[in-house]
Amino acid sequence: MRIALDAMGGDHGPAPNVGGAALALAANPDLTLVFVGDQGQLDPLLAAASLPAGRVEVVHAPQFVEMKEKPGEALRRKPGASIFRAWQLLAEGKVDGLVSAGNTGAVVAGGVVTRRFLKGVHRPGIATVMPTAKGRCVIMDVGANVFPKPRHLLQYGVMGSVFAKHILNIDRPSLGLMNVGEEEGKGHELVQKTFELFRSSTFTDRFVGNIEGRDIHRGAVDVVVTDGFTGNVVLKLSEGVLEFVVGLVNHEVIGSLQAEREQAQLALKGLLAKYHYSAVGGAPLLGVEGVCIICHGSSKDKAIASALGMAALDVRVKLNEKIVTELETLPGGDE
Amino acid sequence: MRIALDAMGGDHGPAPNVGGAALALAANPDLTLVFVGDQGQLDPLLAAASLPAGRVEVVHAPQFVEMKEKPGEALRRKPGASIFRAWQLLAEGKVDGLVSAGNTGAVVAGGVVTRRFLKGVHRPGIATVMPTAKGRCVIMDVGANVFPKPRHLLQYGVMGSVFAKHILNIDRPSLGLMNVGEEEGKGHELVQKTFELFRSSTFTDRFVGNIEGRDIHRGAVDVVVTDGFTGNVVLKLSEGVLEFVVGLVNHEVIGSLQAEREQAQLALKGLLAKYHYSAVGGAPLLGVEGVCIICHGSSKDKAIASALGMAALDVRVKLNEKIVTELETLPGGDE
Repeated sequence: MRIALDAMGGDHGPAPNVGGAALALAANPDLTLVFVGDQGQLDPLLAAASLPAGRVEVVHAPQFVEMKEKPGEALRRKPGASIFRAWQLLAEGKVDGLVSAGNTGAVVAGGVVTRRFLKGVHRPGIATVMPTAKGRCVIMDVGANVFPKPRHLLQYGVMGSVFAKHILNIDRPSLGLMNVGEEEGKGHELVQKTFELFRSSTFTDRFVGNIEGRDIHRGAVDVVVTDGFTGNVVLKLSEGVLEFVVGLVNHEVIGSLQAEREQAQLALKGLLAKYHYSAVGGAPLLGVEGVCIICHGSSKDKAIASALGMAALDVRVKLNEKIVTELETLPGGDE
Repeated sequence: MRIALDAMGGDHGPAPNVGGAALALAANPDLTLVFVGDQGQLDPLLAAASLPAGRVEVVHAPQFVEMKEKPGEALRRKPGASIFRAWQLLAEGKVDGLVSAGNTGAVVAGGVVTRRFLKGVHRPGIATVMPTAKGRCVIMDVGANVFPKPRHLLQYGVMGSVFAKHILNIDRPSLGLMNVGEEEGKGHELVQKTFELFRSSTFTDRFVGNIEGRDIHRGAVDVVVTDGFTGNVVLKLSEGVLEFVVGLVNHEVIGSLQAEREQAQLALKGLLAKYHYSAVGGAPLLGVEGVCIICHGSSKDKAIASALGMAALDVRVKLNEKIVTELETLPGGDE
């Protein structure tokens, strides 16, 4: 399979993209990578990395979207920027998927503008994987759609379930709706109406109902359904609290030790590396034709490699076909 | 001053309310407590606690609102329940404030039904204090108003600031608007319009703009303004991540130690006790006449005492008068 990599995307420029590519090519023998970016910058990096011959191509795109640029403006002013060029390759069928650590808004905008949605999909959304006390869960949406309609959230539940089943290998994933209390009737109109949609859907037996903020990391459900505003806050707040608590532990717990202080510091560093968002890799934009994985801007080699691996896996298991099939089971799913 | 205590409220019944009252009476010599609850249950507990004579009264209220009851139904079916009786005492001027660890929705509903709002206030909101890497911050609203209007959020910023200044002793508190990105124009219509309101208000020089989920615990601002849906998720998610990370540290860091394992476990327990929500005490419902502090249902003695202390302080510093004065500086603030 062929995956396009937005080689200029991310806070650290092309270096971690090239480094991540080397890891991913080694781990995925069926993978060919198309680097989309500035050829002058990429050529020496690619030469130094000595990537496997015949499995690497470069598509020259001299411009890229800055992290702080507004997506709409970037689309107008730089239609040939690396991320938009990558979407174009996907639209032309020249690649099966794309991976970008660039401006998230631009990645989503590129997808919405360039590609058609999957059959039956009203709006694409971003799914992300979070660690829990029981393993992992999927949260959808975390920022593509900040003011969704109930039917969007219903589809996010379905798409998140298909992802949880085929990528995280969770059989019959349970679904929960992010809310301010467990009781039916809680929250605003969006969640009240979404609750009713789930209850009357073919997914009703997997829908556990409303969940609260504290339930996510307890592992109460496999798929958390929420609007992109709340989901984005959940994602970034989880990062913030993790960093905060690790700082407290370092100061108030490990700081009180003597003999085993160094050992404990090392273990804490390992824990942070394991659970930190930068280690997770990537978040798929689900609901568009082709595979699109969005990485954190601060991604290093390992995170890029993990995102490329996820893109390859999504293609391999034909995730999109399975999403379309599941959406067809919803009443009115293809309207 | 006189504070009513919803003596039946909370997951643990009257015992922690009586225990917390004893601590609060010792710490606040100017405090008189009015226990509102079932006299038959309270009398032996109060006798056993040997509280200072003349500073304790009981108002008999045989019913109370269960934690899972719907507030609206409870209001109709049990108008004499302890929390509504406490609001009535406040409305009649027989107490200066009330504290409850009962059903939060019922506490808010009681306030909205029984009491008038402070001059100029459109909607009351719940403020809560969260620990940060730099000290503490105030988040408002965390659940009273899940679908607010921009003018509500503007007032939450003002009320949260007054609270931060006079209760947390933060001079000229900075304000941030919870959003999905820092750039102006991010998010949905509610936050976009609220952003404009802050920019054109008398608080513009203290308004730092949009903040993201990860900024809260870094201590980026002193007051976080958000809708009650997002704020409630923020509050409960923070609890959940704290518990999750403490669990990980216990297993993956402390579990690897030998000689100093016990010492580290003790320090971690201390950290959890210090930063856990159950230690925070209470969250004020701001914008109503009189003082109202809402406690977590799981509150034990210390948390109840801390909430009673906060109620006493709110009365002492005349927090409501200061809120009204600040709201008058907003254009159209008293409409």
